[in-house]
Order: sequence, then C-alpha cells, then structure tokens
Amino acid sequence: MPEFRVSCPVPGTSDRIGIAHGGGGRMMQRLIDGVFRPHFTNPALDAAHDGAALAVGGARLAFTTDSYVVQPLFFPGGTIGDLAVNGTVNDLAMCGARPLSLSAAFILEEGLRLADLEAVVVTMRDAARLADVAIVTGDTKVVERGKGDGIFITTAGIGVIEHAGEIAPARVRPGDAVIVSGDLGAHGVAILSVREGLEFEGPVASDTAPLWRPIEALLDAGVDVHCLRDLTRGGLASALNEIAATARLSMTIDEETIPVAPVVQGACELLGLDPLYVANEGRFVAIVAAGDATRALDLLRNHDVSQRAVLAGRVAEAPPGLVLLRSRIGGSRVLDLLSGEQLPRIC
Amino acid sequence: MPEFRVSCPVPGTSDRIGIAHGGGGRMMQRLIDGVFRPHFTNPALDAAHDGAALAVGGARLAFTTDSYVVQPLFFPGGTIGDLAVNGTVNDLAMCGARPLSLSAAFILEEGLRLADLEAVVVTMRDAARLADVAIVTGDTKVVERGKGDGIFITTAGIGVIEHAGEIAPARVRPGDAVIVSGDLGAHGVAILSVREGLEFEGPVASDTAPLWRPIEALLDAGVDVHCLRDLTRGGLASALNEIAATARLSMTIDEETIPVAPVVQGACELLGLDPLYVANEGRFVAIVAAGDATRALDLLRNHDVSQRAVLAGRVAEAPPGLVLLRSRIGGSRVLDLLSGEQLPRIC
Repeated sequence: MPEFRVSCPVPGTSDRIGIAHGGGGRMMQRLIDGVFRPHFTNPALDAAHDGAALAVGGARLAFTTDSYVVQPLFFPGGTIGDLAVNGTVNDLAMCGARPLSLSAAFILEEGLRLADLEAVVVTMRDAARLADVAIVTGDTKVVERGKGDGIFITTAGIGVIEHAGEIAPARVRPGDAVIVSGDLGAHGVAILSVREGLEFEGPVASDTAPLWRPIEALLDAGVDVHCLRDLTRGGLASALNEIAATARLSMTIDEETIPVAPVVQGACELLGLDPLYVANEGRFVAIVAAGDATRALDLLRNHDVSQRAVLAGRVAEAPPGLVLLRSRIGGSRVLDLLSGEQLPRIC
Repeated sequence: MPEFRVSCPVPGTSDRIGIAHGGGGRMMQRLIDGVFRPHFTNPALDAAHDGAALAVGGARLAFTTDSYVVQPLFFPGGTIGDLAVNGTVNDLAMCGARPLSLSAAFILEEGLRLADLEAVVVTMRDAARLADVAIVTGDTKVVERGKGDGIFITTAGIGVIEHAGEIAPARVRPGDAVIVSGDLGAHGVAILSVREGLEFEGPVASDTAPLWRPIEALLDAGVDVHCLRDLTRGGLASALNEIAATARLSMTIDEETIPVAPVVQGACELLGLDPLYVANEGRFVAIVAAGDATRALDLLRNHDVSQRAVLAGRVAEAPPGLVLLRSRIGGSRVLDLLSGEQLPRIC
C-alpha cells in the first residue's frame, strides 16, 4: 500500500507545502483559495472551471493547462504522455470546446534514459492523433539528478467553442440530471497495481482516453448541457463537491447506479479505498436539463468511451454546497471532500 | 563557480539525458531534432519559432510555452515568477503577437514554505499587470521531498497577431540589419552572483522585463521586421545560430558594437564566461530590412527596455548557417553554438 502521507495533519497549522496540497481535495482548495486566487483574480479564473473561456478576434476560445507528475511513467493502459495529452484535451472538452492545439513542456531529470523519453513521446504522438489535435509548440528543461523525477510534462491547450450556450457550474439548476459517463476507479487502481506490485483478480488498465467525441455528440444534438467535469484527482466525489460549492446547490447520488468494474471494486475493498474518490482519466460527469437526460444517455452510449453512462442522481436546492450519497443499503450520508488524496502522484 | 556539468562529453555516445541537453546549445538541438521533432511534426512546429502561429475562427493567434526551473527562486532583479510571466510574454512578442492570456502550472516540492510560494505568486501578479496580460487558468501538483526543487513553473501564453506580415527565420534576407536591443549578460551574472555567493565590482540585477512594447512600436510604425528572437538560454550567440541555420544564411556581428555593462564584463572575465553566450531575460534581436534599420533603432531607443539598442551586424548569403564575429582586435571567427550551456538552471 502507498504510504498515506499528509504533511499537514491539522489543516492550517503548517506553513509548508504537504503532499495533501496536491491531492485535489480540501487542502488543495485551501491552497488555491488562499495563495493563488487572491492574487490572480480575474473573471476567467474566478469562474472556477476546468479551463478559461476567452473571446479573441471574434472567436470563442477555451484555454487550459495541467502538469503531469505521475509515477510510474509507464503503467497498464497508458503512460505519462497519454495522460498529458488526454488530460488537456479533456479539460478543453469539459469547457464544451473542440480541442485544436497543444503545447508540451518537459522537465527532464539528468540520467533519464533517452529510450524512455522517446517511448513517452511516441505515446503522446499517438494520443494526439487519436484526439485529432496537433502539438504545435514546446520546451525542454533539464534538472540535476535528485531534483526531479524522470519526466514531468506540462501541456496547455487551445480549443474553440462553437456552440452558443455556456457550460459552467453557474448554469446548474435544481432538478438537473447528474450523468456519470462510465465505470469508476480504473486509472487509480492501475497505477497502484504497478506502483506497489499488487496483483488483483484480473488485469486493470487505466481508462485514459480522449472525451471530446461524446461531448460533441451532446452539443451537436442540442442537449441542454449545463456543466461538465472530468473525474481526475479526487474522483467523482471531489468533482461533484466542487460543482455543488460553486453553484451553491445540492446533489444526491445513488450509489447503486454508479458502475465500478468487479476487479476495481475488489481492489478497492482490499486496499480500503472508496472508488468514488479514486482518480479516473477517461470519465466525466455531465449535468444536463432534466428533460434531456434520456436523450443524453442514448447519445453517450453510442460512444465506446461512454457506453456505460448512467443517470446517477439529481441536483436539488438544499442543502447548498453539499453532495449526498444514497447508499446501497439505504440511508444517506454526506459525500465530503477529502482533506488530501487517496493516492499521491496519480496524474 | 558552478560545476560545469556536461554528462555527454562525446555527443552521441550517451543514451541518457545530461544537463547539457537543457542548455539551449547543440545537445538540446540534437535532442529536439532526434526525439521530439520526428514524432510531433506539423507545419506550426516545423517553423522552428519561439511559438506557433494558428488561425482560429478568423483570428491569427500565437501560442507558446516554457517551463522555468531557475535556481535560486529569488535573485537580484527578479524571481522565478517574473521569469515565468515575462518569458512567455516575450516569446509571444517575438512572434509579433500582442500577449493576451497566460496559464500557470506549478510543480511544488513537499516542504516548500508557503510564504515563499506566495512571494513568487505576488511577483507573477505584478509582472502580469506590467505586461498587461491575465493569468486565466492554472494547475498545481505536489511531489515528494527530493523529487522536485522548490518550485517549477510552466506558463503557456496566447497572443493575437494584428499585423499582416510574417515574422520568422524564413523571412530573413541577405543585407538585413541585425539589431540587438541592449546590453547583454546581466541575467546570467545576477543568478551566478547569488548562487555562488560572489560579489563583483557593483550590484548586478537580472534584466528580466516584458518586451512587447518596443516590438509593438516597430510593428505600428510599419518597420519591415523579418525575424525576432529573445536572447535567453545560450544568449545572443545561440539565438543567431538558430536563425542562421533555419534561414540557411550567414550573419556577421561586430563585437565592439555589442553593449555589455562594465560590471558584467568584469564578472565574465573573472569567471571565464563569454557574455555573448550568457542568458538574458529582457533582451532581443530584431532582424529588419536594411532600409528600416535607422528608423527601427530610433523607435527602440524610445523605450527604457531597449534604449541601448544597437546595429550589431548584417545578414549575408554565405557561408550559409554560420555566424561570424568580427572581434574588437580585428579578425573574424565563427561564433559557434555551444555544446551544452555555460550555466545550468538559468531560467
């Protein structure tokens, strides 16, 4: 099992960065709200979305970035290169933007095998082809041995927003349908299996995949999509909490509707992990107008990457900012934001 | 003095990344040409410019990225945050693009003092204000102690190209004027002074600064600007070599025209460095049509950041790909690309 490292056991008492600050949970939110947002405030950033929407010369653009520090660099179903391309493609897709162009900046550690670098680059090329984006600009820096960890990749992406509607937490309304695009937790369990040398009941491959096609299908069909979010660090629970907090609304999710592959479920039980918090790299939540839920599900199920899409819950007015989980055995509990993360360096 | 680390003493014999691969010299060129370019090939990337030019919805955009790994994080005249904002602003400016929006992705090392992070963020805010750009999207990752080095920042930027002409090495012509925007070497010497605890004859502050205003002045006045390049890793010598190689033309530079501050000159002599290869973060070379040279110099000298601009040389047909230096004492020699770099982690 990975060491469960939380360097700030009592939030607020440490004056240093801890692993939990990178986990997609409450500590990261506190870091962003406390250190970054007060200084970088502007309307695009304040929208608290996966990317920024910009108007440039008559075009509506989306712009987004992510750094990738996953360990190991190669894992079942993908590499750090796949994640770096798909992750930024997906953040653009979650803005309702057609992904166009990516940048790729590499921070390499002295001693890295060139063959490993090239193997990663080849997977980036293939992922870019699959997602129909071009890697148009880049940068390379090298740091001394022990000052990095093999390869860090930062991608940024530009997409174009071709539909008229706005897709953002602010558009979520009481009664909206909460759709989850597929089974959860495969990426986190795949990373864990190779990192810790664990074998489960069967092979588990990361779900890393580009997500624009199913989103495009929803938008082209005129589905009234209010909000989209891919389910990365912190999993479904964190994504829903972020949306609920920004929208000042509540959501109730039915646990039994959420698909989890049996082997992932078994691995999570063995390791004491909750699949609702485990990272994914090819899953998203779509919050759509109530009347469009059935049509949205039909459209999503036409695409391999979202063929197991389900109606997982509904948005309600109260209690604002809280996500409730109706469990398999009945009863309901708050699905809270974790303080840190279950698995460090997952993406 | 910094250790002069070149892990691949005989280029081509090592199968691993060495410090020299990040230096802006021949080893980095070899890495880019050998590992990145074959797989990422596309017209925007193949142009070998500071950024990519893209047509999106009727607008002409520039898109660029750089990672910053400078050590120390704070130095006379700037911080890693200033560099991360100004560097990307300047890469956009070198595409002839008005900088609009930046992304900022942080890779933080466990144990980093939050106060240091906030101090860097404040300098980014101030640099963004000065350059009139907004930081609109970002990301934060945390790596374990000993897997990073305090703060790495990757910025990407979007700018808009409002003028009609193309600015690229391919537009350079024999007879063009080579203009250098100011005195060289201050950034590299400033970093070295604090890194190595050296004191020179006077204080040396980094030249880090945004460069769009003087470029805008040239473009607004209709100066026929053929190519622009900011003089970062590898200094003036590396920038000119890259342009000469891409344009398949020659350049001759007069050493005595190039301004170097006396304290920087003294420090370089003491340390055995050539200021033509030392990094700058607020200097650029402009290659303009011969007939526009005087006007360009007048315009540049109106701006503080380029008030010491000089006509440093001329473009010629042959020998193609070579940069020649006419030295102070007469005679001429090839101003070659370094294998690695003079100073690692300079930006």
